[in-house]
Amino acid sequence: MRKVFQAELQQVGDDLVEIANLVQVALRRAASSLLEADVQEAEEVISNDARIDMLQNHLDERSIDLLALQGPVASDLRMIVGALRMSASLERMGDLARHVAQVTRLRFPEPAVPSDLEGTLREMIELDETIIAAVINLLETRELHYADAVYTAKARINELHQSVFSKVTTAEWSSEAQTTIDVTLLSRYLERFGDHGVSVARKVTYLVTGEWDGSPTTTPPA
Amino acid sequence: MRKVFQAELQQVGDDLVEIANLVQVALRRAASSLLEADVQEAEEVISNDARIDMLQNHLDERSIDLLALQGPVASDLRMIVGALRMSASLERMGDLARHVAQVTRLRFPEPAVPSDLEGTLREMIELDETIIAAVINLLETRELHYADAVYTAKARINELHQSVFSKVTTAEWSSEAQTTIDVTLLSRYLERFGDHGVSVARKVTYLVTGEWDGSPTTTPPA
Repeated sequence: MRKVFQAELQQVGDDLVEIANLVQVALRRAASSLLEADVQEAEEVISNDARIDMLQNHLDERSIDLLALQGPVASDLRMIVGALRMSASLERMGDLARHVAQVTRLRFPEPAVPSDLEGTLREMIELDETIIAAVINLLETRELHYADAVYTAKARINELHQSVFSKVTTAEWSSEAQTTIDVTLLSRYLERFGDHGVSVARKVTYLVTGEWDGSPTTTPPA
Repeated sequence: MRKVFQAELQQVGDDLVEIANLVQVALRRAASSLLEADVQEAEEVISNDARIDMLQNHLDERSIDLLALQGPVASDLRMIVGALRMSASLERMGDLARHVAQVTRLRFPEPAVPSDLEGTLREMIELDETIIAAVINLLETRELHYADAVYTAKARINELHQSVFSKVTTAEWSSEAQTTIDVTLLSRYLERFGDHGVSVARKVTYLVTGEWDGSPTTTPPA
């Protein structure tokens, strides 16, 4: 019985990694669709998001069955409750990648990103890619230096998120309102993606150490 | 033992209602701070948010203790897992009210809302107030017509959210970029607030009926 339980618990961990891998692919493809104004790539990100949602539901059902049938305690219990929480964060990261793809689709055939903000948004995307890669490594190895990589990347994203608003409100900014809306939302989606990565990193850290660390919390809005 | 368990389970339900009541107050005060450009009210919403976060942590600890000590099964188990999920949604609604207050504070002494969008944002706020009131009634009574009230209000919010972007992108829109950013984010916060209300309503419905209903899902971004 104990052996079956450990195998089931391992499966919950594997499911989390699988979802995180799909989120990584979704982000990469959403970014590519955005920067290349590639509507077909955007469509695929949008339709593939259903698979992330389905996997999250499976993981949740598995977790609830484990709680019901095994009555786990102590660290096993916290791991299962933590998995329920982390799956929700990862699912939301998938949604945010989908939202980026939806902006691409709405503006097609025009690019959604104006050339003077392309560098900033590209750097935010790269930092989100660093974050999801570190989250996957953290889930697989539980080595906490990967959590530090997440927090460092998020701190830089926060700076860039603020810089987008600074740029848009300078006298030189002459793009139309639609572009202002698009970059405001894109910057927010990319900031939120990173923030959910921080949530997952904090949860794994808590599971490993039993203590909440002093990692950065949610950014205030611009 | 069973009696203690039922009392604890009742307490989890009461805690959810208490958090929802604080969210209701936060929304009302954030809305007032926004529409009156009242920075003192905004400050209080921002500092009171810590209390919502603390109550959520208490509820989560209580739920995890119940899982560990009582090994609940079937509907009790689903209720506790559901409470963990709902507390996360309610906490997030509190964050969104705080974000609205933060926009007020950033623009003070100027109002953050331009006069030509005040009516639309005011209606969105009223719908969010309808939603949190219905969520409280739903948590207290489990009568599912309150869930329908949530879905109806959210459908209207989605229309208004789109209309904000339509308005901002007309040729007549002449406000500066900062205002465009502010209304884009405010509209998004109010839409998200309603969306988390829908999540809670769906969860309660699931707990009552055992089935997911066909309520509206997340809106695509503009």
